Amino acid sequence: MPDRPISTIAFIGLGAMGAPMAGNLVRRQFRVTGFDMREAAREALVAAGGAAAASAAEAAAGADALLLMVVNAAQARAVLFEAGALAALAPGATVILMATCPPDEAEAIAAEVTRTGRHFVDAPVSGGVNGARGGTLTIMVGAPAVSFARAKPVLDALGDKVFHVGEKPGQGATVKTVNQLLAGVHIAVAAEALSLAEKAGIDGRLLFEIMGGSAASSWMLKDRGPRMQEPDPAVASAVDIFVKDLGIVLDAGRAARAALPLAAAAHQMFLAASGLGHGARDDSQVVRAYRALNARPANDA
Amino acid sequence: MPDRPISTIAFIGLGAMGAPMAGNLVRRQFRVTGFDMREAAREALVAAGGAAAASAAEAAAGADALLLMVVNAAQARAVLFEAGALAALAPGATVILMATCPPDEAEAIAAEVTRTGRHFVDAPVSGGVNGARGGTLTIMVGAPAVSFARAKPVLDALGDKVFHVGEKPGQGATVKTVNQLLAGVHIAVAAEALSLAEKAGIDGRLLFEIMGGSAASSWMLKDRGPRMQEPDPAVASAVDIFVKDLGIVLDAGRAARAALPLAAAAHQMFLAASGLGHGARDDSQVVRAYRALNARPANDA
Repeated sequence: MPDRPISTIAFIGLGAMGAPMAGNLVRRQFRVTGFDMREAAREALVAAGGAAAASAAEAAAGADALLLMVVNAAQARAVLFEAGALAALAPGATVILMATCPPDEAEAIAAEVTRTGRHFVDAPVSGGVNGARGGTLTIMVGAPAVSFARAKPVLDALGDKVFHVGEKPGQGATVKTVNQLLAGVHIAVAAEALSLAEKAGIDGRLLFEIMGGSAASSWMLKDRGPRMQEPDPAVASAVDIFVKDLGIVLDAGRAARAALPLAAAAHQMFLAASGLGHGARDDSQVVRAYRALNARPANDA
Repeated sequence: MPDRPISTIAFIGLGAMGAPMAGNLVRRQFRVTGFDMREAAREALVAAGGAAAASAAEAAAGADALLLMVVNAAQARAVLFEAGALAALAPGATVILMATCPPDEAEAIAAEVTRTGRHFVDAPVSGGVNGARGGTLTIMVGAPAVSFARAKPVLDALGDKVFHVGEKPGQGATVKTVNQLLAGVHIAVAAEALSLAEKAGIDGRLLFEIMGGSAASSWMLKDRGPRMQEPDPAVASAVDIFVKDLGIVLDAGRAARAALPLAAAAHQMFLAASGLGHGARDDSQVVRAYRALNARPANDA
């Protein structure tokens, strides 16, 4: 029954993003069976109207689709190929990979999945926990048109900005990679700007007020700028996430043989911030690496 | 009469920015005498209700304020110290430097002006020709409070976002420098992102549509991104302007002993674009340097 629309979904990875996404699928009348290592996460899905399985393969058994919202490509491989979830799916089922993965890894996983006669949809997201809760994620899809069409009703339940960016798996991951390239550089350059201004005795709050209303503005400058003035702001996303994500950006550039000088320089600053012991702090604290470099000299008595 | 409010203004530099700014001062009832090397520019000011002088010193003779909207610090020095405009001003007059200058040069000029007993206001602008015409410029002022207060009615005629960023001349120039740091890096990183996406076969228009609605957005990405898709867009501001302005940014970092790795990397890309023969093209064409680096390999037959 290769043309049966997707009705039953195995959902793997019920974390901060995955849990509300699975809930949105339940509300749209999909039959969702979830799996996560953490028992509390499984119980929460049951409370939301889904079912819980004792393993990824059990969740996948006979399902029309497998949705992966795991941490990285290695976990996606483990679920699909080692835990046996791929083999357990219905013939002609659709695998939807929504984790942030390097483009070449998404492409390699796609090749292994389609070899079994199943569909593969490379569909990473942006929009964070708020987007996951509200069903307003941005979803960047690389997949053949026929596979995209099958997955579309599922994706529409999760996001309101669903873009088919190309026919090849890995192209969705590339667009997500480009998103992280821009986001990471925008945070780092806001910190670089602040460190120069602070050295000249300019008030950081006033600086970002002026920049936020000018052609020098960015989404990240407005969002992270105020948190750069705080000594230790609540963690929305950690420095080490950009150590990882700009690492993926540079790996993608390496695989494609593309020079990315700004991404490379920004990655160094996130690495330095992490090396200074700030990896678990809010990513706005990349400014600490700049302050370590560009501090005004202390008055040694 | 040191406390007499500013009534007569010598305006030097009646270019694309200066001409409409001088017109706005005339409309606010200031008595404006202008000077520019180009006769057509002087005639335009007379037509707008101002007066024209045959030299900078003649324009400055006995004036309450001297407003400099010249190209750079060297021109400002030439007008003030070589052409004799400073000495011609009324005692206690106010010099308002609105050109984009390196912070240390603004500071040095300030020292020479204040030595004669006159006020100095470091007041660079952003907002472009549209802001100059509409009187909606952003003005970033470094000056002692008393000097700022004297200049304020003049500045209010030119901009609607007038910020007193510090008591020291050079601090206004620093904020303008930071503005150019952010703007230049944001243009270059948009080009870097586009070049990576193009290499993966992603449509640039779709890419910027997605990025413009995400946390990866910037003012420059939305403004310059579409022009990066055009083969040779109309020049709003040239590649060589950012060769100059990011040069000022790096000179400011050098003078302050501040490392600015992203600004330095972005400057290299604008330099390369200029070296490839694109210096006079629209600054969005920094993407040509990235395309030269990251082009997809040609199929040599």
